[in-house]
Amino acid sequence: MKNVTVVGAGLVGSLWSLYLAKRGYAVDVYERRPDPRKTGKAEGRSINLALSDRGWAALEKVGMAEAVRKEAIPMYRRVMHDVAGNLSFQPYGKENQAIYSVSRGGLNRLMVEAAEAHPHVNVHFGHACVDADVEGGTATFATEDGHVTSQGEAVFATDGAFSKVRAQFQRRDRFNYQQEYIDHGYKELHIPPGADGSHQIEREALHIWPRGKHMLIALPNPDGSFTCTLFFPMEGPMSFDALGTAEAAETFFAEHFGDALALMPDFQDQWRQNPVSSLVIIRCSPWNVGGKTVLFGDASHAIVPFYGQGMNSGFEDCRVFDELLDAHKDDFEAAFPVFSTQRKPHADAIAELAMRNFVEMRDLTAQPEFLLQKKIEAAFSAQYPGRWMPLYSQVTFSHIPYADALAAGKRQEAIMQTIMARPNIEETWNSQEVMDAILAQLH
Amino acid sequence: MKNVTVVGAGLVGSLWSLYLAKRGYAVDVYERRPDPRKTGKAEGRSINLALSDRGWAALEKVGMAEAVRKEAIPMYRRVMHDVAGNLSFQPYGKENQAIYSVSRGGLNRLMVEAAEAHPHVNVHFGHACVDADVEGGTATFATEDGHVTSQGEAVFATDGAFSKVRAQFQRRDRFNYQQEYIDHGYKELHIPPGADGSHQIEREALHIWPRGKHMLIALPNPDGSFTCTLFFPMEGPMSFDALGTAEAAETFFAEHFGDALALMPDFQDQWRQNPVSSLVIIRCSPWNVGGKTVLFGDASHAIVPFYGQGMNSGFEDCRVFDELLDAHKDDFEAAFPVFSTQRKPHADAIAELAMRNFVEMRDLTAQPEFLLQKKIEAAFSAQYPGRWMPLYSQVTFSHIPYADALAAGKRQEAIMQTIMARPNIEETWNSQEVMDAILAQLH
Repeated sequence: MKNVTVVGAGLVGSLWSLYLAKRGYAVDVYERRPDPRKTGKAEGRSINLALSDRGWAALEKVGMAEAVRKEAIPMYRRVMHDVAGNLSFQPYGKENQAIYSVSRGGLNRLMVEAAEAHPHVNVHFGHACVDADVEGGTATFATEDGHVTSQGEAVFATDGAFSKVRAQFQRRDRFNYQQEYIDHGYKELHIPPGADGSHQIEREALHIWPRGKHMLIALPNPDGSFTCTLFFPMEGPMSFDALGTAEAAETFFAEHFGDALALMPDFQDQWRQNPVSSLVIIRCSPWNVGGKTVLFGDASHAIVPFYGQGMNSGFEDCRVFDELLDAHKDDFEAAFPVFSTQRKPHADAIAELAMRNFVEMRDLTAQPEFLLQKKIEAAFSAQYPGRWMPLYSQVTFSHIPYADALAAGKRQEAIMQTIMARPNIEETWNSQEVMDAILAQLH
Repeated sequence: MKNVTVVGAGLVGSLWSLYLAKRGYAVDVYERRPDPRKTGKAEGRSINLALSDRGWAALEKVGMAEAVRKEAIPMYRRVMHDVAGNLSFQPYGKENQAIYSVSRGGLNRLMVEAAEAHPHVNVHFGHACVDADVEGGTATFATEDGHVTSQGEAVFATDGAFSKVRAQFQRRDRFNYQQEYIDHGYKELHIPPGADGSHQIEREALHIWPRGKHMLIALPNPDGSFTCTLFFPMEGPMSFDALGTAEAAETFFAEHFGDALALMPDFQDQWRQNPVSSLVIIRCSPWNVGGKTVLFGDASHAIVPFYGQGMNSGFEDCRVFDELLDAHKDDFEAAFPVFSTQRKPHADAIAELAMRNFVEMRDLTAQPEFLLQKKIEAAFSAQYPGRWMPLYSQVTFSHIPYADALAAGKRQEAIMQTIMARPNIEETWNSQEVMDAILAQLH
């Protein structure tokens, strides 16, 4: 049995170790953090995640989907809150199509436990990667008892956006690398359950308070609470920097997010306790060194969270790589470079899509024209199912490669610009004439 | 007297230490390489450089221009060699305007010696930067006798494209960073002097063998030789990878660069001995950590060599920073962030201009239409001197900020596209009608 190394027991590392074990490898997984079952501490960032079809498919293949589904809450639509507290709505897809709210910590624990339960997976907690021999396919870890070097034949680096393994790639000639921080950061806040333990706003929805340059969102938790996230500029006249005190922040919230603030009795304490975090986009290539080391998930393509595709794209990496190992009969030398070459354009595409969706969420969802455009697209798509799949559905409810979805989305947007420019589109949007006008532009 | 630290005694580090000394600082310069006067070895890359107005102005300000001029050869024009050995010509600017060929090694030695000769500059050779406390403004160096940490109040990092100091920036939150390798690499070759010691091709010119996707260039040396550089794809069907042996390379040269090959009697030995090097573009921001550490030259903005502006832009950094220290009365806390914010757009602009000039050199200079367009621009510029400075002149013979030059160049290019589309432009190019047509588009 071939021995291989996985660096990082996060979401992607845990899942990939299950894939490897299923393929017949003996897997050593090394994780910086201590065993959460011994410390009782939650893992990493608490930001909620939105699982969608790409993620589910990857979980399904190693039999994990059912267990995860028990902890997930479907979100069927966006609920937009305006400044006065009025609501508007936008379904995510067709009836019964939803994205699923899951907590990062809970999901990670579930995945790690599944990995550990496998007889051929050995998870080593408290092993912080400090070095890697990327040409040799080994990594070295600092532990309480000194340094340990992995023994496997290859390293799968799933150690996240600040990957230590990738840092060794950066020392090599002709490794392209970019870390790009966006202007916005985020702070998490919490809406507790109501007195009766139920959700205080619509449960099976993703809530957005779109305010143009910034926004608040909320995702439901099983315990009746919501995890809220404020996305806000880090610097400038209206920014985390400028807000300063919790009192000033509360005044700001009262003005911009009054209905949400009313549900946060301990707002000022939360504001003081919860950190402001930054958001980074990572791009690099190649993702592999021969057949010895390969970067997965955030380690090779960290993106902003606005399309809910960070985890989903990392999980899809696993499914795609698994198919490549099938195609190449587990020849790492052959499969690793193909993975890097084939997958990279799709990672670039979802990075771009995620930034575009930030503008959509924080700004466009507040505009009636945008909501009308989405209604027209949905109507056309329902009438001519094979001819038009909305971009959001391609990304979220299909396995169409991201770069193909992005290209199709740009073609669709050009068509819809002509449709939205038609006189009286508000009245005629559902007419056969408008449907025909779209059809005429499809070739 | 305030003590400050300069990391790296390359071209920019040596020059900047002279600026600092002139301002009244005690300067410790730390350089990885051993003292070249003790080892007798040449420093670093031998690639020739083209000094132009920005570089000269920066040298002038510390009284170094005269000494450098003695080792520099003016190049008044491009001389293009076609496959058959036929020549065409393009002047760089007006009569007497030239760029100057200097050897990197020779210039570096001259600059380091000038720095060392200053009573307030102390150059420590054999000190390799291994760490930096960028918040504290110190750097640590490995020497033969163990580790040494600098004592100055601030660090000026001029340690090049692979800066160790910058590596510490990368560990900080919200540091944007990109290293981008282009598809082409390069190999240096050498045309020796003729039997009588004279130059075998036109001396005061930059020679180009433009071949579309690749090119050979040659710059003159004072000893009668030329330093040639082949810029060629690293991978692919026609690439360094594909060429393989020196025999194959010679066959390729005979076909593409026959007249140059005829001047290289030891071509195959050279091909075997000289390495293939890669070309990287570095972009990052911010360039400073408070008033404690700041990146200069290639450490913050390494570019490709095709506009001859790598050294010139680094030298201009020194002149610009010196002016900022004047303006801010040597308050580092105030001056460092202003330098980063103001200078960064110009670094981005010259990075873009350098890539555009690669296409111009390797491809456009072989096209009669391009040479005609440049002749028209020169004619218009001569007739209406205040109305049109060709882009190349703005970059090379002026101190117009790079981003302004780039923007003006794009406007000019749009105008010239309309002019080149005129019927019979080959016959009418010098007519008043054409001049009027350009004039009409300037506002």
